[in-house]
Amino acid sequence: MKFNLRARIAAEFLGTAFLLAAVVGSGIMGERLAGGNAAIVLLANTIATGAALVALILAFGPISGAHFNPAVTVAEAIQGSISWRLAPGYVAAQCAGGILGVTFAHLMFAEPVLQISQRARNGPAQLFSEFVASFGLLAIIWGCSRTRAAAVPFAVGAYITAAYWFTASTSFANPAVTLARSFTNTFAGIRPVDAPGFMVMQFAGALAATMLFRWLAPALPGTSAACDSPEKEVEAQRS
Amino acid sequence: MKFNLRARIAAEFLGTAFLLAAVVGSGIMGERLAGGNAAIVLLANTIATGAALVALILAFGPISGAHFNPAVTVAEAIQGSISWRLAPGYVAAQCAGGILGVTFAHLMFAEPVLQISQRARNGPAQLFSEFVASFGLLAIIWGCSRTRAAAVPFAVGAYITAAYWFTASTSFANPAVTLARSFTNTFAGIRPVDAPGFMVMQFAGALAATMLFRWLAPALPGTSAACDSPEKEVEAQRS
Amino acid sequence: MKFNLRARIAAEFLGTAFLLAAVVGSGIMGERLAGGNAAIVLLANTIATGAALVALILAFGPISGAHFNPAVTVAEAIQGSISWRLAPGYVAAQCAGGILGVTFAHLMFAEPVLQISQRARNGPAQLFSEFVASFGLLAIIWGCSRTRAAAVPFAVGAYITAAYWFTASTSFANPAVTLARSFTNTFAGIRPVDAPGFMVMQFAGALAATMLFRWLAPALPGTSAACDSPEKEVEAQRS
Amino acid sequence: MKFNLRARIAAEFLGTAFLLAAVVGSGIMGERLAGGNAAIVLLANTIATGAALVALILAFGPISGAHFNPAVTVAEAIQGSISWRLAPGYVAAQCAGGILGVTFAHLMFAEPVLQISQRARNGPAQLFSEFVASFGLLAIIWGCSRTRAAAVPFAVGAYITAAYWFTASTSFANPAVTLARSFTNTFAGIRPVDAPGFMVMQFAGALAATMLFRWLAPALPGTSAACDSPEKEVEAQRS
Repeated sequence: MKFNLRARIAAEFLGTAFLLAAVVGSGIMGERLAGGNAAIVLLANTIATGAALVALILAFGPISGAHFNPAVTVAEAIQGSISWRLAPGYVAAQCAGGILGVTFAHLMFAEPVLQISQRARNGPAQLFSEFVASFGLLAIIWGCSRTRAAAVPFAVGAYITAAYWFTASTSFANPAVTLARSFTNTFAGIRPVDAPGFMVMQFAGALAATMLFRWLAPALPGTSAACDSPEKEVEAQRS
Repeated sequence: MKFNLRARIAAEFLGTAFLLAAVVGSGIMGERLAGGNAAIVLLANTIATGAALVALILAFGPISGAHFNPAVTVAEAIQGSISWRLAPGYVAAQCAGGILGVTFAHLMFAEPVLQISQRARNGPAQLFSEFVASFGLLAIIWGCSRTRAAAVPFAVGAYITAAYWFTASTSFANPAVTLARSFTNTFAGIRPVDAPGFMVMQFAGALAATMLFRWLAPALPGTSAACDSPEKEVEAQRS
Repeated sequence: MKFNLRARIAAEFLGTAFLLAAVVGSGIMGERLAGGNAAIVLLANTIATGAALVALILAFGPISGAHFNPAVTVAEAIQGSISWRLAPGYVAAQCAGGILGVTFAHLMFAEPVLQISQRARNGPAQLFSEFVASFGLLAIIWGCSRTRAAAVPFAVGAYITAAYWFTASTSFANPAVTLARSFTNTFAGIRPVDAPGFMVMQFAGALAATMLFRWLAPALPGTSAACDSPEKEVEAQRS
Repeated sequence: MKFNLRARIAAEFLGTAFLLAAVVGSGIMGERLAGGNAAIVLLANTIATGAALVALILAFGPISGAHFNPAVTVAEAIQGSISWRLAPGYVAAQCAGGILGVTFAHLMFAEPVLQISQRARNGPAQLFSEFVASFGLLAIIWGCSRTRAAAVPFAVGAYITAAYWFTASTSFANPAVTLARSFTNTFAGIRPVDAPGFMVMQFAGALAATMLFRWLAPALPGTSAACDSPEKEVEAQRS
């Protein structure tokens, strides 16, 4: 079963919007309630983000592949899982959806709609964290995608849940998320000036993992049709 | 396999009763133990509600579809997944079950059985939150229902876990839950005067998501038989 | 595939031992670390117990059905899912395993091996809580068992995770667990004098749910072979 | 489908590296944020480790079996699930990967790269804890592996989540993890002098569980090809 381009783009837009609403909204809620304990804020942020990813990838995976992430889209295009022709539309939808999600989070919490983050996130440790986080994300996706595609939503949700805690940057691992989070001056924000560095490391990490898996498992069935391309997902689900 | 009306109505009644007992009971337990840290209360409330939803939808989904929610029932009827003839019985069972669940929570915690909430929940931010929360809930249900119905219990549980934190209203997203929660003056309560506004936004959000998915994916197999109609569930489970 | 009696009894013994080690051990660890915040202790206790149940039912379900609970064994025997002939061995293994698990928890935490609880747990609210908790547990089991047996481990783990918070008694819901927990004077303990009342309500709740499901869904396929009888589990897994 | 040795070794190396990064990194993050509440640090550590295990076993299971643990590799070799010829390569990859993961965690958090732990972990209670933890881990693996191999990632993740709390040692249960954690002087560390004792108990516990399951369920189908050997995993996933 194939979905048309309109449906795929809408799914990427909507899914990324809800993902960002979850990331930013839960950060605001956490900060308001936690009485200054940063670990409890991050715990709330983690649980909300991980759970949102599971739900959103389950729901939108069959339509668009549920990338929600330009680094994933580019990696899938490199592997031939989606055509390069689709990639610009996907990335645009992810970026626009992400920004909409942030503004929706602000509206839901009666915060000023338009904000620019002043939260510094930079330095070699954080940049290296983003490389590792994105490398790991793509490793998880490539590892699952060929033989257990139906588990991808749980694997990605679980991975990000862990990565929020084991990276110093709390694992953005997603250029569209990074862009969108520069538009909020709340818990989840990142200064616009720090965003490009994060994005470079995210693409680099994703690319490195993709190259590694090409070398590691070149002859796998489905190596040219990635895990979360809609056709494969549906097929896996049905088999 | 079809269940008779009696069994379906009983499943909606029982499931919604346990859902409300979980929501209200865990709020009471959380407040008693957390020593004033509201984030920890909400964390407990979140974990209990999300986990209860997974268990209850797994258990009652095969019998009634496990709506537990008038907005879901109406959306399913619009889509033709259940007949309009069944809807009033479902909604009545959900409302009655929800209220029973609240009184059971009170009995379990030795609280006065009959209470009326005095907790204000209103204003544009909270109302918009309910619209977003309900829109997202139905988007998750419609997204999963056609191609991965067996994942619906996990998707809905995960979504509500996230939505408790990313909406300012803690995501009631359910008119029967809203009605029932007006009968408790504990952590989970909502003033009766605020309930209708929540309900309107819940139906509006659910309707908007349903219309969107009609446009988004009109020709999907199963578009006229929703995910959590019992027949489909069982079929998906067995295939 | 059938397992012999020896293997089944050993599975019930071992599984209940680990379940109790998890319940009691995590309570001790939580109290030692949480600095007096009872909500955090219960959160740790909840996560450990729910996760242990998922793992143990997944592992031992195919061998013995993973009851770990005399109320479940009796209910399964009433429904004809296991023969009455097996029930005494199951119950004895559960009780002995549970007590061993408690002593192992004490040894792991360098506590006195033999203890008698002095923690009072009684009164109508707690007794009613045990009735509701056990009713719900069996409702979840009967609801899942016929059509989605492979989901039983997750449904039971999720249900108990929720029930720890939504019942005033923290949901023992298990006579063997109740007996064993009378042998620890730590967080999870219950005074021996209070145990019989809990047990009566647990059997009553389990029985009530079993009768209800008999009336609710009498003609279901598999109504005479319960969800977690080993044969059914394996079959469900393989189909 | 078979993977070549190179791919299997790389999967063990990479998976164990990410596992250790998760264990050590989340401990550092937890300590920095939790304001001195040790229970919240352990909660963060638990969630990150359990979630990382689910993701990593899902991703690398189909390639190498996702042992990440010399005690598991030896047990699998004893059972004939992998050939003894492969075991040394697996163990070396696990140890090297684990140490790399620790240094990556240090780099991500701008800690000194090379550290030696000064945290004492010894005494009969902790040693007994490691025996129980490793016994339980292998019991879970052997219990799941024959009839529900696709559930192994969730069972192992859930088991370790529980075992972090119900053992006094926080359940290392893995000689490669123990070795690697001696190279960090942060929350997760263990003094080198205490490591050998832990390792002996881990192998002893794993061996005991393996022997027990041999006696318990000798004639099971697949008794000579364990759950997480790659071929079986893929087969289970596809059936």
